[in-house]
Amino acid sequence: MATELAQTIAADNFLIPESAQPPRRLLMGPGPSETHPGVLAALARPTVGHLDPFFLQLMNELQEMLRQVFQTRNRLTLAVSGTGSAGMETCLVNLISPGDRVVVGVNGVFGGRMREVAQRAGANVLAIERPFGEVFSLEEIEQAIKSHSPKLVGLVHAETSTGAMQPLEGVADLVHNAGALLVVDCVTSLAGCPIPIDAWGIDAAYSGTQKCISCPPGLAPVTFGPRAEEVLRSRTTPVQSWYLDLGLVSNYWAETSRAYHHTAPINMNYALHEALRLVLQEGLPARFARHRYHHSALRAGLEAIGIQFAVAAAHRLPMLNAVLIPDGVDDVAFRGRLLRDFGIEIGAGLGPLKGRTWRIGLMGETAQASHVLLFLAAVENCLAAQGYRFTPGAGVAAANEFYTTAR
Amino acid sequence: MATELAQTIAADNFLIPESAQPPRRLLMGPGPSETHPGVLAALARPTVGHLDPFFLQLMNELQEMLRQVFQTRNRLTLAVSGTGSAGMETCLVNLISPGDRVVVGVNGVFGGRMREVAQRAGANVLAIERPFGEVFSLEEIEQAIKSHSPKLVGLVHAETSTGAMQPLEGVADLVHNAGALLVVDCVTSLAGCPIPIDAWGIDAAYSGTQKCISCPPGLAPVTFGPRAEEVLRSRTTPVQSWYLDLGLVSNYWAETSRAYHHTAPINMNYALHEALRLVLQEGLPARFARHRYHHSALRAGLEAIGIQFAVAAAHRLPMLNAVLIPDGVDDVAFRGRLLRDFGIEIGAGLGPLKGRTWRIGLMGETAQASHVLLFLAAVENCLAAQGYRFTPGAGVAAANEFYTTAR
Repeated sequence: MATELAQTIAADNFLIPESAQPPRRLLMGPGPSETHPGVLAALARPTVGHLDPFFLQLMNELQEMLRQVFQTRNRLTLAVSGTGSAGMETCLVNLISPGDRVVVGVNGVFGGRMREVAQRAGANVLAIERPFGEVFSLEEIEQAIKSHSPKLVGLVHAETSTGAMQPLEGVADLVHNAGALLVVDCVTSLAGCPIPIDAWGIDAAYSGTQKCISCPPGLAPVTFGPRAEEVLRSRTTPVQSWYLDLGLVSNYWAETSRAYHHTAPINMNYALHEALRLVLQEGLPARFARHRYHHSALRAGLEAIGIQFAVAAAHRLPMLNAVLIPDGVDDVAFRGRLLRDFGIEIGAGLGPLKGRTWRIGLMGETAQASHVLLFLAAVENCLAAQGYRFTPGAGVAAANEFYTTAR
Repeated sequence: MATELAQTIAADNFLIPESAQPPRRLLMGPGPSETHPGVLAALARPTVGHLDPFFLQLMNELQEMLRQVFQTRNRLTLAVSGTGSAGMETCLVNLISPGDRVVVGVNGVFGGRMREVAQRAGANVLAIERPFGEVFSLEEIEQAIKSHSPKLVGLVHAETSTGAMQPLEGVADLVHNAGALLVVDCVTSLAGCPIPIDAWGIDAAYSGTQKCISCPPGLAPVTFGPRAEEVLRSRTTPVQSWYLDLGLVSNYWAETSRAYHHTAPINMNYALHEALRLVLQEGLPARFARHRYHHSALRAGLEAIGIQFAVAAAHRLPMLNAVLIPDGVDDVAFRGRLLRDFGIEIGAGLGPLKGRTWRIGLMGETAQASHVLLFLAAVENCLAAQGYRFTPGAGVAAANEFYTTAR
């Protein structure tokens, strides 16, 4: 056997690749965002077992910190062992039974994904649609609820594909009056702008670690309120996903049972623990204000060189700035130069916005004055390289003017 | 808003926990296993974007290295963004359409899990059963195929709950002659003992990172052969999981498309890359031999102090040693002392074996002479503390005798 294997490998002439040494990037796209060095250090701490008393205590602390960040008292608050889309699927497959009626707001890629996941869970989905970059009015949501009588309404708070923020105040009342659940995607907004789960009456929500929490991707914080828990308890068919079955997953997270379900991504949970500590040390109000502040500086700089936002002022996400690519500027060449010469990543447009917008992230650790200034200086360089006409230095000057005068 | 939040936090009297500093453990349970310091260092390298040219190149290299470790040329070989159980679910939900007939071998917890996941995917499952710790004969498998005419046969190569290894030579012929697919769980065996996917005709297989690959948990290597790919292509219903839909996932991994699906766990992929390099630098034949070698030393030591294996000699996994807890020895007290006084983790019995067996892992980096000797010395200490009668020093002496004389 041994000889045979050695020959296989030799016959393939297989060369083992070099150890991977990532380039240093400035992550200003739609996520992952910059991480604090302390979070990367936590990631590298020695692995322990998934039932180790130390790890069980860490899980307790994670749950408590996630509740603070979600601004909820929901018992069922934990980190799913997958990325943000696994969080979406967790919320939908646990709450939907085949044949359930569901309303989903689709005004971007992630609303579309919610519809798709709900359909795969067997739901009868009514999708209400708005053009990418716009948001839904209370009246539109109310109308959809009246016409479809859903068990569940799914909305994206922060549409990562468009940079638009869906207003959610008042939505829960409409949804609850119709006896339905409100499920919200806050992948991009959590820890970056207010999304107070309890105060807004949100029944279930999911997020990711790699946006405003500033932890590498790999886990999906989710929270389920009492109404959602009741739906879980009263299911008569099993959740279609075993891996994401919250009944089983929560038996592992619950201090009273700790029943083995799957081997948790131990080190990712270390990193999330450290990242949440940094979020709470800063404090949510200060963190939200910081995101707005640097968003304003970035806006001042971009507008000073003639770059316009793709989303109406009232509905812009502070942590994800979608702007229109100026006429005559080549999208791929611009982003290529920004990455190659300055190590700066921004996001391309998604779906119908591909080639029409850039998505500039100011999430978590990325939202700093030094990043905004470097970014604007580099943007001026890359625009000039394409013959785009603007007053050289105007972008940086406007941001500096903002930083000098605003408080 | 800001003031209100500050008050909420103050009213909760919330204390931010200390930074989590894990104790140093020696991981000798059923996984996670010990990791090489270089793998932890890779985990902490700076995060880049999931579409960064550097990361796309790393994905190519990961696929090539995974093919080497699986001993396959399967194009569709990649790391799913979840732990081993997500790998199981990926294989089953992609290959099963509702109503499909499936045969699953259940001789442990993970066979039982396969049955459960297949049922949730809508399969009509015939489970063939053997007592925990035993394995299936070719005749039993053949009989089940004849009686159920399945589309898919699922078997666990290395039953992590029992320590038994299912012989697989000849199984693919039976399965293929009946027009079915062979799907194999090699979570615990991959990179620890031979599981040559192509040579054995396995159509789809899944594993985990935290066993013999010696990487922290968080990713699930999977491989799909041509027959399995054909089943994927000819599906008429969507895969029930969007997150695990290999059609979508492979569009992200394929060099020709790179279509965004979800944000990959970037840093976990760095760690897997480094861990696979170490596996291939050692070479599979040497690595398999190393696992057998230290298993033999451990066995000599345990038998010298009267501890018996739970699995017949012909079917023992070298990397996961299930032994019977001696009469009169308290399971919980024994494992508690081992962890508290020596930092050594071993696994408890699962399912019907709870309280009856211990599971001692020698996976990947854990399989070293120093770990075996320390473990035996600590076991002698913990057994003596419970008044168990044996010749003090006999376990360590027997292992040393083995190490001194065997080659």
